[in-house]
Amino acid sequence: MPDLRPLLSPDSVAIIGAAADSSLRGRLTQQLVEHGFDGRIYPVTRSQTEVLGHKAYAAVGDIPEAADLAIILVPAAYVVSTIEQCAARGIPAAIVISSGFAEEKSEEAAARDQALRAIAKRTGMVIAGPNSEGLVNPLRPLVATFSPVFHDPNEPLLPQNSRAKPIAVSCQSGALTFAFLSRGRDRQLRFTYQISAGNQTVLEAHDYLDWVLDAGGADIFMGYLEGIRDTQRFRAVAEKAARMGKPMILAKVGRSDAGRRAAASHTGSLARAGMADDAIFRHHGIIRGEDLDHMVDVASAFAYCPLPRGNRVAVITGSGGSAVWMADILSAHGLELPVIEENLQRRIMALLPSYASAQNPIDATAQAIGEVGYAPMVELVAQSERIDTILLISSLANPERAKKLAAELAGITASLDKPILLSTYTTATPASIAAIAGAGIPCYTSMPSCARAIKALVDYGRFREKLARRKPAEATAPALRDEVTLALAAAGPVLTEAASKKLLARYGVPLPPEALATSEDEAIAAASRIGSAVALKVQSPDILHKTEAGAVMLGLSGDGAVREGYRTVLARAKAAYPNAAIDGVLVQAMAKRGREMILGVTRDPDFGPMLMVGLGGIHVEVLKDVAFAPVPLGAEDALDLIGQLKGAALLDAVRGERAADRDALTRLMVALSRFAADHADAIAEIDLNPVIVHAAGEGLTIVDALIVKR
Amino acid sequence: MPDLRPLLSPDSVAIIGAAADSSLRGRLTQQLVEHGFDGRIYPVTRSQTEVLGHKAYAAVGDIPEAADLAIILVPAAYVVSTIEQCAARGIPAAIVISSGFAEEKSEEAAARDQALRAIAKRTGMVIAGPNSEGLVNPLRPLVATFSPVFHDPNEPLLPQNSRAKPIAVSCQSGALTFAFLSRGRDRQLRFTYQISAGNQTVLEAHDYLDWVLDAGGADIFMGYLEGIRDTQRFRAVAEKAARMGKPMILAKVGRSDAGRRAAASHTGSLARAGMADDAIFRHHGIIRGEDLDHMVDVASAFAYCPLPRGNRVAVITGSGGSAVWMADILSAHGLELPVIEENLQRRIMALLPSYASAQNPIDATAQAIGEVGYAPMVELVAQSERIDTILLISSLANPERAKKLAAELAGITASLDKPILLSTYTTATPASIAAIAGAGIPCYTSMPSCARAIKALVDYGRFREKLARRKPAEATAPALRDEVTLALAAAGPVLTEAASKKLLARYGVPLPPEALATSEDEAIAAASRIGSAVALKVQSPDILHKTEAGAVMLGLSGDGAVREGYRTVLARAKAAYPNAAIDGVLVQAMAKRGREMILGVTRDPDFGPMLMVGLGGIHVEVLKDVAFAPVPLGAEDALDLIGQLKGAALLDAVRGERAADRDALTRLMVALSRFAADHADAIAEIDLNPVIVHAAGEGLTIVDALIVKR
Repeated sequence: MPDLRPLLSPDSVAIIGAAADSSLRGRLTQQLVEHGFDGRIYPVTRSQTEVLGHKAYAAVGDIPEAADLAIILVPAAYVVSTIEQCAARGIPAAIVISSGFAEEKSEEAAARDQALRAIAKRTGMVIAGPNSEGLVNPLRPLVATFSPVFHDPNEPLLPQNSRAKPIAVSCQSGALTFAFLSRGRDRQLRFTYQISAGNQTVLEAHDYLDWVLDAGGADIFMGYLEGIRDTQRFRAVAEKAARMGKPMILAKVGRSDAGRRAAASHTGSLARAGMADDAIFRHHGIIRGEDLDHMVDVASAFAYCPLPRGNRVAVITGSGGSAVWMADILSAHGLELPVIEENLQRRIMALLPSYASAQNPIDATAQAIGEVGYAPMVELVAQSERIDTILLISSLANPERAKKLAAELAGITASLDKPILLSTYTTATPASIAAIAGAGIPCYTSMPSCARAIKALVDYGRFREKLARRKPAEATAPALRDEVTLALAAAGPVLTEAASKKLLARYGVPLPPEALATSEDEAIAAASRIGSAVALKVQSPDILHKTEAGAVMLGLSGDGAVREGYRTVLARAKAAYPNAAIDGVLVQAMAKRGREMILGVTRDPDFGPMLMVGLGGIHVEVLKDVAFAPVPLGAEDALDLIGQLKGAALLDAVRGERAADRDALTRLMVALSRFAADHADAIAEIDLNPVIVHAAGEGLTIVDALIVKR
Repeated sequence: MPDLRPLLSPDSVAIIGAAADSSLRGRLTQQLVEHGFDGRIYPVTRSQTEVLGHKAYAAVGDIPEAADLAIILVPAAYVVSTIEQCAARGIPAAIVISSGFAEEKSEEAAARDQALRAIAKRTGMVIAGPNSEGLVNPLRPLVATFSPVFHDPNEPLLPQNSRAKPIAVSCQSGALTFAFLSRGRDRQLRFTYQISAGNQTVLEAHDYLDWVLDAGGADIFMGYLEGIRDTQRFRAVAEKAARMGKPMILAKVGRSDAGRRAAASHTGSLARAGMADDAIFRHHGIIRGEDLDHMVDVASAFAYCPLPRGNRVAVITGSGGSAVWMADILSAHGLELPVIEENLQRRIMALLPSYASAQNPIDATAQAIGEVGYAPMVELVAQSERIDTILLISSLANPERAKKLAAELAGITASLDKPILLSTYTTATPASIAAIAGAGIPCYTSMPSCARAIKALVDYGRFREKLARRKPAEATAPALRDEVTLALAAAGPVLTEAASKKLLARYGVPLPPEALATSEDEAIAAASRIGSAVALKVQSPDILHKTEAGAVMLGLSGDGAVREGYRTVLARAKAAYPNAAIDGVLVQAMAKRGREMILGVTRDPDFGPMLMVGLGGIHVEVLKDVAFAPVPLGAEDALDLIGQLKGAALLDAVRGERAADRDALTRLMVALSRFAADHADAIAEIDLNPVIVHAAGEGLTIVDALIVKR
């Protein structure tokens, strides 16, 4: 991993294209100087000898030292030559503010992109951008951006005395990079590294994150991504963050046609957000950012709260209506509001009038909350064994009362090992929100936002538990792996059902009673061994759609029928595909009844092979009820994946049927996913369709299988 | 409808239990006086002779006139006698602030509720509350509440010179009633009537709304409801508002167990929010409030914007990242972002640098937006035939620039017949938001909130179009209606399939080829007339589950089989239910193939009969894929209802099947719904299950039917 210290925490900065006017170049230069960067500043410009009190240089070669960081402000056409000069001068890091690269669809722009990558590779220079709005590290303080968010040098870059855990931000959008700071200011959030990553032509979000994970200085990561190029490294860094317990909150856009069109013209990214992103994010516990507020709301919860032990929330309020509404909203988010212990209810009711309620929600009523305050109730509720998180719903309309409330609660929160959050039904002044934050309590002005934030804490806590249990995927014996690799290499572009199953069986995928017959007599012998009605299916790598070609017959019993069937399917196959190479006819027991499912492996253009599971028939074909996960996959994750299906309940004991054999299904998913992971480079697609899952304990039958090579 | 003028716009007010201290009573008295009510004020209290400069009276009987409104602040135990005194004094309206009624589960409290209703009924007095936080009418100005939102008498109750349409609020929560005002202040929203409706023991939200619809003074209605008692009047008022084009934005809580528990202890409401509410709201175009912000966001859009002609949105911005993200979010809300006309693109690009984009989103880039501004682009986009709504995404971080932007746009918006909204990716000062509102543009600090608001405008526009097309339900001929009423009255509690179908057929519900046979020979004759395989089903009002009793046989062909079957089903029925009265055996053609569906009528405890439609089998039993609508229902609404099913696509031409006969299905829904509406009082439940819907043009077969009386 490259050293990003010169980029993110430089001791000296060259501003190439520096200015003192009102242009973007001028604003960046000015903000850097006015925010009081503690290192050395070297403006590079031909048009002036001094810029804002700093001696200016006509060329990079003229500056008196190899500065840590070059900030590139020159027009796109000059960027490559400038970077070359920086490299020649020994400057190890650059951030390219200039636009006119991948976001501009021209050959010149593409050539510039290539050149940037080539220089980075050749020289080891670390390059942020291009098309970046700059970066900010308040710990120096380094304000290397023209963003208007920093127009006032008197506005502090970090809150004073905040209890909040520090946050790093990297976005493929300048405006959004610095929007988090302004949105988090009232809640006293501490944004340390803020990087406008631009087009991510060289460095990507995970590069910044990786370095910060090692160097320290941030415990929470937020980002906005239009594309990910090095998906393997992205996943490795995400895994590293997850193991360290540092939550990542990432927006990934490009879910809609209009969004993809816009991304292409914004950073040149081939945005392709969809099922694979969701699956990858879920696998690594990445919280998917829905919008700016959602991300700041969730980050606020992580910044102030410990992880809750479960999903049980107590609501304490003086507004009965808010309590009712919030109870609905929390429930809709999968959070529970258990009635608290009776002795605690009694002790709370002792403080309240008869028309109050202490079950949960605890509705103290408007009058009593003014007299009693929240603190005595929080102290009682904190003792409940049934509660994991405490949520106060209050009015912060009056700033003086907000400060009093904060003072009351500050002592309690410091020692409380449960999350405590506050939702206000009125608007609140920044000072009120800051006061509450000062007591270590994140404040929400929207009820659903608060519910989503609690849900994120609960989910992340559960993810961390799951992660601790997650075992490394079972390793395939090298000999077996090599054997299958060779077999795949030797095969044609499409493997027949029989050939596919034979390979999959080497990984423990169960086969139904079946045999490949190359003569009528062999078919009869096979059917006789099977001992029940059979299906006959012509096997040819040239015939992908056997049924449509008439090359399949079902439910045949008796020697005569099998012989006749053998002739028929072969004849039909030859009629439909006169030149097809035919391996033989698969003689297969008719499957017992069960739930029809579909399993497969598809190849995501970004993330590679993904396991797919779905309910069969109409569920997959019309209702698109399928779920995806990266490979390989453990049994617990496989079970989770099944649970993501909308129709998962169909696998339970329903309509007089016994429950389906989920164990057998998860075993199959684990085996198939390991196969796909081991042979990711060779495989474009695997389809097991249908898979009939029988009742619990009775396994499953893979009725058909197909492997398509890349 | 009672006259609410004395309640909502009184000329004189008696404050019964007036005080000048810091209690809630004192705060209400003080706020009423300090906000400068323009009518006469009569404090009633035994403990003082003067309250805040107003002569006090020892008893209601002593005040010198029959005041328009009595504000009741005495303890619960004295409320009824006080109200009686008010009635005796000739006071026509009261608002009961006191708590201790339905929300307190005691016999005394229940008796007080009864007494309030009795007085209202006997005297015609209009009574708001109890358990109310008061009401506010800034047009007087009347501030009859202790809500701390009004603690500062210098804070204006209405914005100056706002272009916003006025809004009325009624909530079953005091805190929420007045929370809208504080949330809407920055956006210059004009809240005229604000009523904390308390327990709604006498007057309900729709009563206030109905009066305001007649009296004028509000064009948008917002409310928070825990329960609705008079659902028929609620629906009538909702319909009236819809016809007048005045949107209602209502939250209805009680969807969760915890929410219902909380509502019971808050206002004593039996909250039962669920499918019926959703169906009723949808039918009347009521916008379901999801949370405070959602409601204020949507209200802001209605307050400032005309209804758009369609769902096509243009985005104009300087932040490319925001544009991409917003494109995704708009798309996820069902809004479209069409590429605009090429000539307009060219004219826009003439203003912008090469790395900008003018397709839609129109990403001017950060630099150019600062130079060019939004106005020239808005003027060009407004000319597009492909765009119904214009959305600006901007930074309002700098208040001076916000004011400049507002000034630039004010002229354009005044003449624009398309909605124009603004979303800011930074935070914004109240002054900035107010400036934008002053230009007639609602401002959003959250992207999804903005998308939801646009969606609400689009949906309401579509609803209004549908409403204009919606015809009054076809009236049943009185003779037919009476005939069925009598037949239902004469029937036992459960009607057999044959009896149910016979009655439904009178309303045009199609019957399959079938006949009731009371002898073997009749059964054979019927089967012969039908001419294909038949089912035999014993008909008995005492046997609800025919199949489970073995009283059904399927697929019988030929005289011998029919005769044998007749004997068998009767014998089995008698064995299972020896005392059952048996009407005969239904001889029914076996249904042709088709999609299995379920139709029914269920009775919602609040809203009465609701039509239900669902996909049959697993879809209804396991996946609960059903949709509901109030009865009666027109053909277009019936089609919409089918479209609400998650599996609606299964009725299209899929998996090699022809599309299902949606026309026949909607005809059945219309007929069944008219039946249910005509006989609402007599019917508890109707089940048509299964209904086999054949291919388009081939109708449907009602395989089984059941009517259960109330």
